[in-house]
Amino acid sequence: MAVAPVGPLEVANALGLVAFAAAGTLKGADADLDFFGVVVLGILTSFGGGALRDVLVGRTPTSLLTTNDIAFAFVGVALALLLSPRVSGRLRDHPLFRGVDAVGLATFAATGALVGVAAGVSGFGVVVLATLTGVGGGSLSDLLLTRVPVVLREDFYATPAALGGVVFYTSHAVAPPPIPTTACVVVVLATRLLALRYDWGLPGL
Amino acid sequence: MAVAPVGPLEVANALGLVAFAAAGTLKGADADLDFFGVVVLGILTSFGGGALRDVLVGRTPTSLLTTNDIAFAFVGVALALLLSPRVSGRLRDHPLFRGVDAVGLATFAATGALVGVAAGVSGFGVVVLATLTGVGGGSLSDLLLTRVPVVLREDFYATPAALGGVVFYTSHAVAPPPIPTTACVVVVLATRLLALRYDWGLPGL
Amino acid sequence: MAVAPVGPLEVANALGLVAFAAAGTLKGADADLDFFGVVVLGILTSFGGGALRDVLVGRTPTSLLTTNDIAFAFVGVALALLLSPRVSGRLRDHPLFRGVDAVGLATFAATGALVGVAAGVSGFGVVVLATLTGVGGGSLSDLLLTRVPVVLREDFYATPAALGGVVFYTSHAVAPPPIPTTACVVVVLATRLLALRYDWGLPGL
Repeated sequence: MAVAPVGPLEVANALGLVAFAAAGTLKGADADLDFFGVVVLGILTSFGGGALRDVLVGRTPTSLLTTNDIAFAFVGVALALLLSPRVSGRLRDHPLFRGVDAVGLATFAATGALVGVAAGVSGFGVVVLATLTGVGGGSLSDLLLTRVPVVLREDFYATPAALGGVVFYTSHAVAPPPIPTTACVVVVLATRLLALRYDWGLPGL
Repeated sequence: MAVAPVGPLEVANALGLVAFAAAGTLKGADADLDFFGVVVLGILTSFGGGALRDVLVGRTPTSLLTTNDIAFAFVGVALALLLSPRVSGRLRDHPLFRGVDAVGLATFAATGALVGVAAGVSGFGVVVLATLTGVGGGSLSDLLLTRVPVVLREDFYATPAALGGVVFYTSHAVAPPPIPTTACVVVVLATRLLALRYDWGLPGL
Repeated sequence: MAVAPVGPLEVANALGLVAFAAAGTLKGADADLDFFGVVVLGILTSFGGGALRDVLVGRTPTSLLTTNDIAFAFVGVALALLLSPRVSGRLRDHPLFRGVDAVGLATFAATGALVGVAAGVSGFGVVVLATLTGVGGGSLSDLLLTRVPVVLREDFYATPAALGGVVFYTSHAVAPPPIPTTACVVVVLATRLLALRYDWGLPGL
């Protein structure tokens, strides 16, 4: 493997893979799954959003092609398995964990928007891919546990990712890279952290 | 955007997008979803069948590429949000709504068969794609709400779409376009409307 | 259709298609589905794993392209419909049925690994595709019935398929075809049959 320069987006993406895998593993451990099921839930939560994104634009999921990302996902699974007995179910509510998870949401939304623009989809498509890359993994693992995806019911979580897609698409027409990516990450991260801080939510009907 | 001549299939397809989006929105509003979830359910019901069809034949979903269809889907979402408080849950049982929904089923089945033949799939594949394009959106939104897709349990709804696929495939070998498309639409629409009129259903086992 | 020489892998694959379709049909008949739903569950259980595999590597599912496999799947559906009233729900526990199902799991895992290597995925990707091809159909049909896929909860079923993927990937670097395929089939079949014989399971957490 060639040693490529590692930028802030790569670091943020790795943090996101770890956080998402840990979140999925904890969700699986709380449910009535065996060891295989728990690991599948962790890996799927980490890779599911990117896999949906790639399949929709006709690419083989990068998680099946490269090996870097897998290492981070397994770090997340291992961390969750090690920590979960000690933190007794409160790990997912820990501010540090929620902060790292928000970083993951922001970078995943940015990669979704990047892939969408490269594939020539519409503005609507960019927003869909940014959102789906951010929330797809968690939603797929919810579905495997036969739960209505939490992002459809409550929690100001998908909305920041969708906003990030809007920001990316509108800015990429006027600003050179990496400005759209940076703007997307900043907007997602800021709105998600504010939502956590002030307990934002969307109304029902 | 160039102004292309608009044929009856385009009109029927637009009606279907509106009706399916409205049906999904109403389904989401009845469930315990927030505003984001309700809109997702409407859009997914409208685009889900076509997206499954496109992914199966290796195409990026047209709903992510073009902007025309999105407008119709959002019209359906908006109509449902405006009308649902006034018609108090009965909108989906209204004969007009069921008729427009049947038009959507018929045109979606025809586009599924058309895409399947163009992709060189087998006769079985054409029937699968016609059926899936017609019922896939509603089934995906059922799954998001953790419900067994209604088309698997009751309701003479998937069967007309499958019949339309059979009619398209058998007629396209002997008749030039647009005869297979027309025959498919007519057969789906007729069997679906008869099923509604006479309360048809398939037996269980 | 040209008459091609039929090897043991083709025979095993056909047995698997029949067994998986029968298992899905029986599952659908036990649930509250109509006739269409029961047939869909049988066909999806038979083809679902291969369809997921093909979509992930950017191919149109072979089940939509060729007609041979469909014949075997419908044989499985018909057998299940004929036998289920007589064996009264015990068909799935019959040793013969479980043996044929294990043959299917083994050959499906091998085709998943083969397709993965041909598509140039990573070792992790080969294991994922082998496992998903083996257990994907049953898991999709579980999800349609809004059940947590049984392979995530109990049953030493996905683990043999994953082991088969590992064996295929490690052996294909050093041994010519068809040794990796044979090794994969043998390992999956042996571990699955031993698991059935000795009631193996994975621990929870």
